[in-house]
Amino acid sequence: MDTEKTTPKRRRGRPPKDKKDYNETREALIRAGLESLTEKGFVSSSIDDVLKKEKIPKGSYYHYFASKEEFGKELVDRYIDYFANMLKKHLDDSSLPPLERLESFVNTAASGVKRHNFKRGCLIGNLGQEMSSIPESFRVRLQKGFELWQSLVAGCLEEARREGMICADADCTKLAEIFWTGWEGAVMRTKVDQSEAPLFDYFHFFTRCISNK
Amino acid sequence: MDTEKTTPKRRRGRPPKDKKDYNETREALIRAGLESLTEKGFVSSSIDDVLKKEKIPKGSYYHYFASKEEFGKELVDRYIDYFANMLKKHLDDSSLPPLERLESFVNTAASGVKRHNFKRGCLIGNLGQEMSSIPESFRVRLQKGFELWQSLVAGCLEEARREGMICADADCTKLAEIFWTGWEGAVMRTKVDQSEAPLFDYFHFFTRCISNK
Repeated sequence: MDTEKTTPKRRRGRPPKDKKDYNETREALIRAGLESLTEKGFVSSSIDDVLKKEKIPKGSYYHYFASKEEFGKELVDRYIDYFANMLKKHLDDSSLPPLERLESFVNTAASGVKRHNFKRGCLIGNLGQEMSSIPESFRVRLQKGFELWQSLVAGCLEEARREGMICADADCTKLAEIFWTGWEGAVMRTKVDQSEAPLFDYFHFFTRCISNK
Repeated sequence: MDTEKTTPKRRRGRPPKDKKDYNETREALIRAGLESLTEKGFVSSSIDDVLKKEKIPKGSYYHYFASKEEFGKELVDRYIDYFANMLKKHLDDSSLPPLERLESFVNTAASGVKRHNFKRGCLIGNLGQEMSSIPESFRVRLQKGFELWQSLVAGCLEEARREGMICADADCTKLAEIFWTGWEGAVMRTKVDQSEAPLFDYFHFFTRCISNK
């Protein structure tokens, strides 16, 4: 999306046939956009490539999104929600002790990066790294995303604390923040090392550190 | 540097007047390139902007570097060395206990990100995040950089271990790797939070975890 303007344009191209068509096409664009942003970040992602992938005429794009910036913002929001749901699925699984639920999330994330040949990272981490090159309007969104994911992990750690698996005086909110800080570094490192090992290494270090010995 | 080709071009433009001129101009381009890559990463950096900043005619560029890729590789190597020297300066300071030397590096790094208004990150972390969009040839270089920096931190942790400040059975090589993994996440997070706090939070968590209690 490097060459496109981020300001809204007048709608041109063939309009979508009906509401169902419109929604389906819009969702297809979002799916393709999410793939691109998790792999390449915002600057390197190309709207042309996204449209090509979905076989959507170039001129039709502005029927769906006012600008690259607006498209990007919606992708950020969607990703934050999608990821929060995935996290909840693991962290709410009361059949496992709290720290094993977190481990179950780590295993799923590690399978994901491996399945995508260590090319895809965290959309929020990618855009955070690009903060100097992307619109400032993304910053608060990225922050809110981290806060949401952190609150979910903090809840899980809090349960572990109540069950005596981590220190009674642990600040679970702060620990969850540190978990995400390091986790994002580990996700970046999977791309450089072409291996999921940094995720497991970081997770084991983190849990060993917080566990009641 | 998003629109430039990465393949070598025939040298054009005005050639440099003499050897001294040549070296000075080349160094000025490297300095400007380093600034750009630590702020924007590889894809968003523009060779045109670098040349403009140094008031160097556009056509002269290929007298100094064969391509954007070659320029980028030299910048990576320079940054790795520059950063290793900065690290050594702190970690070799035997007037301080080993973990305080690491803290001294953290303080310097935190001052740096603050001075640059939380716009600049780690050049290696930026390019690591961009791995899907930059030439594969960078990957081994980034890895070697991490390995060098990790070996310096491992040496410092080894001293701390010998002095009984961290557990006797600690694997300092692995701990140094984990330190860098999390550190890169913390550097990215300074951009999102516009604060140096993630660096201190991560460092304090890391040292509290490894310290002999």
